[in-house]
Amino acid sequence: MPRVSQHHLEARRRQILDGAARCFARNGFHATSMADVLGETGLSAGAVYRYFRGKEELIEAIVTEVLEALRTTFETAARQAPPPPPDVLIGQVMTEVLTERSGLSYDGEESLPRLMIQVWTETLRNEDLAAVMRAGFLKVREAWVRVVLAYQRAGLMRDDVPAEHVARTMIAAAQGFAAQQALFGAVPVAVLQDGLRALMSMDGQRAS
Amino acid sequence: MPRVSQHHLEARRRQILDGAARCFARNGFHATSMADVLGETGLSAGAVYRYFRGKEELIEAIVTEVLEALRTTFETAARQAPPPPPDVLIGQVMTEVLTERSGLSYDGEESLPRLMIQVWTETLRNEDLAAVMRAGFLKVREAWVRVVLAYQRAGLMRDDVPAEHVARTMIAAAQGFAAQQALFGAVPVAVLQDGLRALMSMDGQRAS
Repeated sequence: MPRVSQHHLEARRRQILDGAARCFARNGFHATSMADVLGETGLSAGAVYRYFRGKEELIEAIVTEVLEALRTTFETAARQAPPPPPDVLIGQVMTEVLTERSGLSYDGEESLPRLMIQVWTETLRNEDLAAVMRAGFLKVREAWVRVVLAYQRAGLMRDDVPAEHVARTMIAAAQGFAAQQALFGAVPVAVLQDGLRALMSMDGQRAS
Repeated sequence: MPRVSQHHLEARRRQILDGAARCFARNGFHATSMADVLGETGLSAGAVYRYFRGKEELIEAIVTEVLEALRTTFETAARQAPPPPPDVLIGQVMTEVLTERSGLSYDGEESLPRLMIQVWTETLRNEDLAAVMRAGFLKVREAWVRVVLAYQRAGLMRDDVPAEHVARTMIAAAQGFAAQQALFGAVPVAVLQDGLRALMSMDGQRAS
């Protein structure tokens, strides 16, 4: 019997995570059972439990993966001199990471934005998940900070504002936009990009 | 016996809504019972049910009130020529409406940001609440649109971007910032204001 290849293991893991993400996005974390996940993936309990011991491990893996993908995108951007402007960068991230890579449809019952706000609520009562979220958010923020510092070094942005404050603000815009998608339906990412460009066209040199 | 005054009725209603908001923020909508609300307010069932028939009415009243307060603030701002810049306006809104007016502590287990993300999750499964949220969001957006149009009329912002896109983006930044407060702890609103000013200091005249 041939040994199971690394490729096969990866593909199986992917299949499980995508199925679990669809379940969580659709029905929430609490209302989803491992039986639902098995049903969604079409795999046996043995096949799934080989990779993940339960719902907690599944949601933590999903969150870690999405935040890691975000971090990588921003770190790549930060290495460009100068990095793409915020509206371009956010468009890239929301298209590539959040829609194409997530295994979830963009709109509808199984969208990543729906999963996101359910994970947030779960974070309020689940200390392990909160720790995963805090660590992941910190990394994404640090990656954004490097992008902001690159803007400031290139003279593209006033440099008397702490880069961390800008990073939090950019992440907030993306998070809030995703929340609107979950609550009120899909809207093209170009809407957020337009809004950022309009904001950038104002005079921000005023003292605070 | 003196008739119950309008003032007394209002104060009693306020007391109930604030108590319910604290319960929902702390434990979520589902885990909160009407008995919890009675315990929190220290009122009798008769006193509470005189105003609200149940949890659904309570959460709808709280959401309506907060969104209405947001709308009023933006409409007042839109009447100024020109309105305060976005960073000033958002600071005003988040300080006045979201902290001083809500009956909730700013930080901790009973904060409005915590209530907000729990309401969002509840919105995914509660059609009545979703309708209240959609109507309220639309009014807040329309009020922001008037502010944006005033910026554009005054030549403070490029006017080739639909005002609605800017309104959605500004609301997204505030929503996402509040979500970060719920998830990762309180941060001064000045952080978001700094971030907006830095963004405004970039060049946003580029074509899309």
